Amino acid sequence: MSIDLLIKKIKETGNPTVVGLDPHISYVPEDVLAKFAEGDQTNAILEFNKGLIDALCDIVPAVKPQAAYYEMHGWRGVRVLAETVDYAKSKGMYVIADGKRNDIGSTAEAYAEAYLKTSVLDGHFHADSLTVNPYLGTDGIAPFVAKCEDGASIFVLVKTSNPSSGELQDLICAEKPIYEHVANLVNTWGKTTIGKNGYSSVGAVVGATYPEQAERLRELMPRTYFLVPGYGAQGGTAKDVAKSFNSDGLGAIVNASRSIMCAYKKDGGDYQSAARAEAIRMKNDIVNAI
Amino acid sequence: MSIDLLIKKIKETGNPTVVGLDPHISYVPEDVLAKFAEGDQTNAILEFNKGLIDALCDIVPAVKPQAAYYEMHGWRGVRVLAETVDYAKSKGMYVIADGKRNDIGSTAEAYAEAYLKTSVLDGHFHADSLTVNPYLGTDGIAPFVAKCEDGASIFVLVKTSNPSSGELQDLICAEKPIYEHVANLVNTWGKTTIGKNGYSSVGAVVGATYPEQAERLRELMPRTYFLVPGYGAQGGTAKDVAKSFNSDGLGAIVNASRSIMCAYKKDGGDYQSAARAEAIRMKNDIVNAI
Repeated sequence: MSIDLLIKKIKETGNPTVVGLDPHISYVPEDVLAKFAEGDQTNAILEFNKGLIDALCDIVPAVKPQAAYYEMHGWRGVRVLAETVDYAKSKGMYVIADGKRNDIGSTAEAYAEAYLKTSVLDGHFHADSLTVNPYLGTDGIAPFVAKCEDGASIFVLVKTSNPSSGELQDLICAEKPIYEHVANLVNTWGKTTIGKNGYSSVGAVVGATYPEQAERLRELMPRTYFLVPGYGAQGGTAKDVAKSFNSDGLGAIVNASRSIMCAYKKDGGDYQSAARAEAIRMKNDIVNAI
Repeated sequence: MSIDLLIKKIKETGNPTVVGLDPHISYVPEDVLAKFAEGDQTNAILEFNKGLIDALCDIVPAVKPQAAYYEMHGWRGVRVLAETVDYAKSKGMYVIADGKRNDIGSTAEAYAEAYLKTSVLDGHFHADSLTVNPYLGTDGIAPFVAKCEDGASIFVLVKTSNPSSGELQDLICAEKPIYEHVANLVNTWGKTTIGKNGYSSVGAVVGATYPEQAERLRELMPRTYFLVPGYGAQGGTAKDVAKSFNSDGLGAIVNASRSIMCAYKKDGGDYQSAARAEAIRMKNDIVNAI
């Protein structure tokens, strides 16, 4: 199961974190931008991504490129997304495409084929994993689960890290918040993809900014891997994210994007050394808390 | 407001329908495929899309390209999405990018910039409108609403057409199903974008397959334009979709994709004539029912 590959890389690096590659153009260092013509921002982004991957691939198990930051540059940006995914995989990293895709039937199949196909074709996105949104129910998830049975993984939005996440996710229905209903669906969807470590390849997104809810969700979904956004900039602490882990030290992977990509702005020095130092600091912070 | 532009085109054509451009490769006619090398499917798709747009642009107000069918071909497919959007706009059609995008904060801003930017840049997606998913609440929608205040529109998933849509959308909270809570949010989000026809540029996706719910949502969201999937292949009839219209004959635009794109397979003849004939049949069917 794909989740076993992620767990293997987490164990090898001793590091349950994932670096978000959300390359807003303002994050790209001046000296990288300067190498490219002004109209050639997408190649500057690609060089920045590759530099980050080179600096992190032996100490961080996974990267999570955020599709929006590529799509905002049109198809040339999306080409850089494909090239970033390929480069990260060539360096041994597990790649979670953060697309929060959702649709029904044959359209959901098309998204699953777009991001989680196993055959390697030039210019396609060969991620290991994709984030997905559950609002459409089982019809919208089943095509992705089929890919999970065939070597991929997904992370379903359950309880997101943002301030307004509760507007729908916290509404109480039959004495349970909506996110717990989604958690039950995630358990059901993941039943056929339990790997040798006891975890399912159908994971969940659970924000670090809601530690009480994360603790409850950890109980409700013992076999589900959590992708945890919200550490650092959004206010989640290592103590908060610790609630998303199981007693086996597994069960969660914590994301940081800007704090690592832009570490050079805070700490000085070249962006690669700064990103690596911040990734090590984050790893130690989290490992010490779990 | 952007919704006024859509309404203008609907009035000019007398046709409250939108043609989905969901170009699964099996939909592309043999003679179009035969013009291109086997590995060059994306250009066959582009030619097919352009042929459909040529055949429909004077009688149909809008097209709705579905992002998944382009993304499944990697970045070259996404280039065809950008080219399709540009071509449809050059032919005077209103373009609804069906991406069901969703994220928070600066990432939602990036998606809004990706699909709804007003400045024209080569290779970018310059749609008039984008479908979005509400699961993340206001944080995830506000950046799109900002674009609606600046010449774009969105359609928020409220009650989708698929069989499992009720798993979350129909859960009852405080005596109302979740989709009614979303409807209330849509009303709130749309307040600042009411145009001269009395409709907001923050629209809603309401499936034709649930006519009773559509009738209720029509009452709850009098100023919201509905994008209505599920007519035809999914089982929604003209009588069903009529419930999504207001008494002014406005308020909804009904989608059909496969029935028009693949009309030639059922009715014979060239794909352009068959698509045009089916588009006229659909228009008459719906206009007679409202």
